[in-house]
Amino acid sequence: MIAEIISVGTELLLGQIVDTNAAYIAQSLATLGISIYHRVTVGDNTDRLAEALLQALSRSDLVITIGGLGPTMDDLTRETVAQVMNIALVEDHEAKDHLEEIARLRHWSNYPESWLKQVLVPSQGYGVPNRAGTALGAFFAANGKIAVCLPGPPTELIPMLDEQIIPDLAKRLTGKSSVIHSRTLRVTGLGEPAVEDRVRDLILSHNPTIAPYAKGAEVHLRMTASAPDLPAANALLDPLDRDVRERLGDAVYGIDEENLELHVVKALVARQMTLATAESCTGGLVAKRITDVPDASRVFGLGMVTYSNEAKMHYVGVDPDDLKAHGAVSHAVARAMAAGIRNAAGADIGVSTTGIAGPGGGSPEKPVGTVYVGISFGDTVYSDHFLFLGQRADIALRTSQAALGLVRRAMLRPESLAERSMEQR
Amino acid sequence: MIAEIISVGTELLLGQIVDTNAAYIAQSLATLGISIYHRVTVGDNTDRLAEALLQALSRSDLVITIGGLGPTMDDLTRETVAQVMNIALVEDHEAKDHLEEIARLRHWSNYPESWLKQVLVPSQGYGVPNRAGTALGAFFAANGKIAVCLPGPPTELIPMLDEQIIPDLAKRLTGKSSVIHSRTLRVTGLGEPAVEDRVRDLILSHNPTIAPYAKGAEVHLRMTASAPDLPAANALLDPLDRDVRERLGDAVYGIDEENLELHVVKALVARQMTLATAESCTGGLVAKRITDVPDASRVFGLGMVTYSNEAKMHYVGVDPDDLKAHGAVSHAVARAMAAGIRNAAGADIGVSTTGIAGPGGGSPEKPVGTVYVGISFGDTVYSDHFLFLGQRADIALRTSQAALGLVRRAMLRPESLAERSMEQR
Repeated sequence: MIAEIISVGTELLLGQIVDTNAAYIAQSLATLGISIYHRVTVGDNTDRLAEALLQALSRSDLVITIGGLGPTMDDLTRETVAQVMNIALVEDHEAKDHLEEIARLRHWSNYPESWLKQVLVPSQGYGVPNRAGTALGAFFAANGKIAVCLPGPPTELIPMLDEQIIPDLAKRLTGKSSVIHSRTLRVTGLGEPAVEDRVRDLILSHNPTIAPYAKGAEVHLRMTASAPDLPAANALLDPLDRDVRERLGDAVYGIDEENLELHVVKALVARQMTLATAESCTGGLVAKRITDVPDASRVFGLGMVTYSNEAKMHYVGVDPDDLKAHGAVSHAVARAMAAGIRNAAGADIGVSTTGIAGPGGGSPEKPVGTVYVGISFGDTVYSDHFLFLGQRADIALRTSQAALGLVRRAMLRPESLAERSMEQR
Repeated sequence: MIAEIISVGTELLLGQIVDTNAAYIAQSLATLGISIYHRVTVGDNTDRLAEALLQALSRSDLVITIGGLGPTMDDLTRETVAQVMNIALVEDHEAKDHLEEIARLRHWSNYPESWLKQVLVPSQGYGVPNRAGTALGAFFAANGKIAVCLPGPPTELIPMLDEQIIPDLAKRLTGKSSVIHSRTLRVTGLGEPAVEDRVRDLILSHNPTIAPYAKGAEVHLRMTASAPDLPAANALLDPLDRDVRERLGDAVYGIDEENLELHVVKALVARQMTLATAESCTGGLVAKRITDVPDASRVFGLGMVTYSNEAKMHYVGVDPDDLKAHGAVSHAVARAMAAGIRNAAGADIGVSTTGIAGPGGGSPEKPVGTVYVGISFGDTVYSDHFLFLGQRADIALRTSQAALGLVRRAMLRPESLAERSMEQR
C-alpha cells in the first residue's frame, strides 16, 4: 500500500507552525509497512487542495489529510475530499445532538451555520469520533481508494490515529485486527552517533522498528511494534528492549515519560536520601530541573547559585588558594563546591557545576564548553571533566544532564565512583 | 513572486525527523512578500524528485530544495535540479582545494569519488559558500526561473539563507515588489485579553498590520509593514509603535529579541547595580533566566533556592514566628527572603519567590497558583500577591516573570514601589 500525506493550512505555508503531525503519521504507517513517496502542504484554498488530492489519489492508495476540519469558513478539507472522490456527506445525528448540547451549555443562542458542518460524515465510509475536540474526522472509502481526514491539533489527531485509523488500516491490510504500540528508551551519557553505532543493525528491522533521535541533552530510542493486541505487541518489544539494554548498558535510564530529573527524584525518594546543589555555569538549571518534579520537596531543601568567586568562598567553602591555583573552572573547585553544599544543607548528596558557558571567557587551555561536575556522597568526593560543544544554553543543558547523571551513578554504583575518586587523588 | 519548497529525504517521509527548515524558509520568504502555495516532500529518489521539480517550476518562479547535497550516493538533489533545468555543473576550484585540504588534514588517503561532488556549482548561477559544513549550496537561474539548493542541517541552512539567499532575492525583487518589515513589541504584566482590548481597533488596520499573541508568560505585538524600502517601512511602523506604547504604558518593555532577562541585566549594568535571588516555588528559574544572559556575571553573584523551611530560616533569615503565623507562602516570608538574600549577597537588589506550584499543596485559603514575590532595594521592602492558573511549569514561569518584572519596576519607578510599600504596612 502506498500512502500520501496532505497537510492543509496557510499557517503551515507561512511557517508560523512546524508540522509535527506528518512525521508522527509517517512513523505509524511505517510500522504497518505502508510506504510514503510524497508529502504535500497546501494552504486553505479549495482549488489547490482539490488539485493536490487528485494527484495524490492518482498515484497512491491511501491519502491522509491533516487540518481544515473546524467550524470556520476557512475549513474546507472535508467538503473538498467529498467532492473530489464524488462521495456525499451526511449528518451524524448523535454528534449533532452533542454539538447542540455544547452550544446550549455555553449559552450560544445563535451559533453560525458552519458550526454544524463539523458533524458531516462520508456516506461511503464513516465519521471518526474525536474525544479531544468538536470536529469529527472522516474515513472515505470508494473504488479501492481511501482518504482519511484528521484534525490539525496533535491532541486530537494522535488519539484518533492510534485508536481508530491505524487499527482499521491494519485490519484492512491483514484481515485481522491489530494495534500499534510504541515504547521509548531514554539514554543519557552517550551521544547519538555512539548509540546509532551500537544499534545500527537493529534499525533495519521491520516489526518491531527502532529509531534513535537526539532530544535535548539525551538520545531517545523509539521502538514500535504492530500486533493483534497490546500483550502481543509488548511480547515483540520486550526482546528488543532487552537486546538494546545489553548493548547500551547503564546508559539506558528510563522509559517513555520518565525524564532524568523524575528518575533521580524517584531514586532519591526510594533510598530516603536528600540532594543539595551548588551551581555556577548552570545558574540554577539543575535545581530548577529537580524542582520541576512535583515530589521534589521530599528530597531537596537547599540549592545555591554561587556565580561569583566570593559566593563560592563564603557559601560553599571553596578555598581561596584553590581558586588562585586552579581557577574557578577546575576539578578542585567542583569538588569543594559539592562537599560544601552537602555540608551546608546537611544533605546525603551534594552535586556541583562549574564551567565556561560562553560566548566569552574561554582560553586556549580552557575553551568555551569546558565544564567540571562534582559530587559528594558517603566518604567520596569525585569530579568529572567535559568539553561540550554548542551555544551557551546547550552547554548549560548538557552540564545539568551530566550533573543529574552523576547523581544517578552515585546511587546506582557508589563503589565504582568511590574507586574512580581514589584514582583521581 | 511565487515560491515552492521541496524537502528531500527518505528520513522525512519515514517521520524520523521533523522538518523545521521548511517553516524557517517560509517565514523568511514571507518577509519579502514572496508567497508560497505548495510545499512538497519526496524521498531520496531521482525520478520522483525530478517530477516534483518539473511540477514546481511549472507553477512557481522560485523553487527552494532542502537536503541531498552531501557526499553520499543518496545525495542527488544538485544533479537532479541541474538536469531538470538543463544547466551544466562545473567544479568550484577554490572549494575543491579546500575539500582536498580537509581530506589531507584528516589523513584520508583514498576518499570516495563522490566526496568531490559537493563542490559542483551551476554554470548559470553560482555556488553558495557554506561556513558550517562541506557541501556548497547552489543558486540556479535561467529562463526567468530560480532554483536554490540548500543543505539539510539547520546549522548550515540558516546562515546560508539569512546571509546569502534572502539578500540576493531581496535585491532581485527591488523595484518589482516591496519590502516587508516586522517589529515585535514585548509586553509583560498584562494578559493577552487586556492587551487585545486596548489595541482592538488597530488590529483591523492593513499597512502596517498588528497582531497580538501570547508567548510564554508575556504578550508579543507583532507589527508588520510593507513599503518600497526599509526606511519607508520603519516610517510606517514608528507612529503605530508610539500609539501602542501610549495605550499600554510601562507594560511594553522591549523590542524584538530583547527578552525580559536581557532587559533586566542591561538595566542593572547601566545603573551599575547588582541583584541576588532567593527562590522557593521557582526552584532556580529566576537565577537561571538571569544567568542565561552572557553578561550576567557583571550584575549577579549569588542566588539561593531555599526550598525547605529550614533553608529559609538558616540562609535568608526568615523568622520562625512568621513561618508559624503566616506560612511559607505569605507576604511576610517573601519580604524576609528578599531582604535576607540581599543582605547575604551584599547586593543592591534582592528578589524572592514563594508560592504553591502544585499539583499538590493547595488549600481553600491558598489554592494552587498562590504566589508571593518580594523585593528589597534602597530602604524599601515590598511584596506582590498573585494567583496564577495553569500547570506547575506555567506557574513557575509566570512567577519568574513577575519577579523579573518587579526588579524592572524597582529600577524604573523606585518611588512608586516605595510608596506602595508604605501603604502595605
